[in-house]
Amino acid sequence: MKIGIIGLGLIGGSIATDLRKRGFASRILGHDASKLHAETALKFGLIDSLTSMDELIKKSELIIMAIPGDATLKLLPKVLDQVSTQVVCDVASIKNQICERVKYHQNRKQFVATHPMAGTEHSGPWAAKSGLFDGKASIFCDAEDSDEACLRVVHQMYECLNMRVLYMSGFNHDVHAAYVSHISHISSFALALTVLEKEKNEKNIFDLASGGFDSTVRLAKSDAEMWAPIFNHNADNVLTVLNTYIDSLNQFKTAIENRDREGLVYMITKANRIKRALRE
Amino acid sequence: MKIGIIGLGLIGGSIATDLRKRGFASRILGHDASKLHAETALKFGLIDSLTSMDELIKKSELIIMAIPGDATLKLLPKVLDQVSTQVVCDVASIKNQICERVKYHQNRKQFVATHPMAGTEHSGPWAAKSGLFDGKASIFCDAEDSDEACLRVVHQMYECLNMRVLYMSGFNHDVHAAYVSHISHISSFALALTVLEKEKNEKNIFDLASGGFDSTVRLAKSDAEMWAPIFNHNADNVLTVLNTYIDSLNQFKTAIENRDREGLVYMITKANRIKRALRE
Repeated sequence: MKIGIIGLGLIGGSIATDLRKRGFASRILGHDASKLHAETALKFGLIDSLTSMDELIKKSELIIMAIPGDATLKLLPKVLDQVSTQVVCDVASIKNQICERVKYHQNRKQFVATHPMAGTEHSGPWAAKSGLFDGKASIFCDAEDSDEACLRVVHQMYECLNMRVLYMSGFNHDVHAAYVSHISHISSFALALTVLEKEKNEKNIFDLASGGFDSTVRLAKSDAEMWAPIFNHNADNVLTVLNTYIDSLNQFKTAIENRDREGLVYMITKANRIKRALRE
Repeated sequence: MKIGIIGLGLIGGSIATDLRKRGFASRILGHDASKLHAETALKFGLIDSLTSMDELIKKSELIIMAIPGDATLKLLPKVLDQVSTQVVCDVASIKNQICERVKYHQNRKQFVATHPMAGTEHSGPWAAKSGLFDGKASIFCDAEDSDEACLRVVHQMYECLNMRVLYMSGFNHDVHAAYVSHISHISSFALALTVLEKEKNEKNIFDLASGGFDSTVRLAKSDAEMWAPIFNHNADNVLTVLNTYIDSLNQFKTAIENRDREGLVYMITKANRIKRALRE
């Protein structure tokens, strides 16, 4: 199948790598607003050739939009304006607004809204790697608004990436994403800021980081241009969960102020239940 | 060298494994207040034999106390009461109170206060593993209060575990540990509590956890009986950094409430500097 990928960063580049390697893609056209990203992706052999956006849309059977959520919001209607039989999917971390934006577009049925739940804290075509999606979940949103045949194509694409497909509304996706993914990033960014402020000597951070800090702060390396719009576009859900998070921290604070050993043990033991949810 | 290990959990068991494997220990005696831990450690071959505490102290050249901080605080003076030429070291995560507790003990010079900065979220002799300490840092505290020859023995022991040794006061250790290690654990426990409260369906947590949540919440599986006393014993430092952390989160909250994209990008970009501190 002829694939066109708009956005040749970590996600677009990793998709390209495995779709080609595993025989799903016969040819991959690529486009990226950043000349550096585009030329790097070509040089690394992630794609077969670079094209203009118009040419990519015209010549691809499946168009994958692998750009940040706010860019997807802007570009998706224009892409849909130009398609006839082509299938279009996106991979953005916010889903409700994207689905709402094109709900009444005449070519809505050609579009499949998806969110593959995978990634690393790195970005750009340099970070692309094979196997990034293996065994993870991809969420299909508002699938009833997509054409059956288009859904099938995108489903096959994700099967090729070894992903489990789950279905939910765009609205529910955004609620769950705030709870499980977005709050983790805020927690990690704030932790990095705290430690950088308190620990003026970076050598100490490095030396002591193996005490657990390194894993908790991993996400704080994530890209600002990607995450600022996610928090804004999913603000209501993110604020709800952020308030609960700050409440939890204040409970720890009170317990420590009171040297309340039983209270701390109770809260930590309750937190330990996360093991069961992660099935470890 | 004849080694005695008091406390046969993750840390004591992992030390035993590598000291034997790498030829540092000629014989390892073990003791644990939990019969289950003690017998498991013996069955797994982590130690050569189980003994009473008194016998372990009498027959060992180097005694390693690998028990939680509050237990170390209670037991260390009693162990020191019984030593003559034996070297004693501890591995607890709190150091200032431990050093203060035995500062004027007649056998203080036989004691070396250390904190190997390594671990996992698992506990017990089942979690013991070779290589746990490789490449990590071990902090020696108030080393000027220890005998030179004793310091040398403990230094050699940590070299055998492939650890870099750093020196600082017990007071400074506790400040830095609060900034880099203790706050990470609180952040992670509170995150687990938040998500467990908000996300009633554990299946969703599992499906969506690859969005970054899994790494941020890893530490939330850590043992309550170990961590509650650490927070209490290091309360002043932990509260200072916890307040800064809550302030940072409130700044994110305000920025999101105002849909302040520039403010968010600024904060996240600042947080990204943690990459440099971690040298990645």
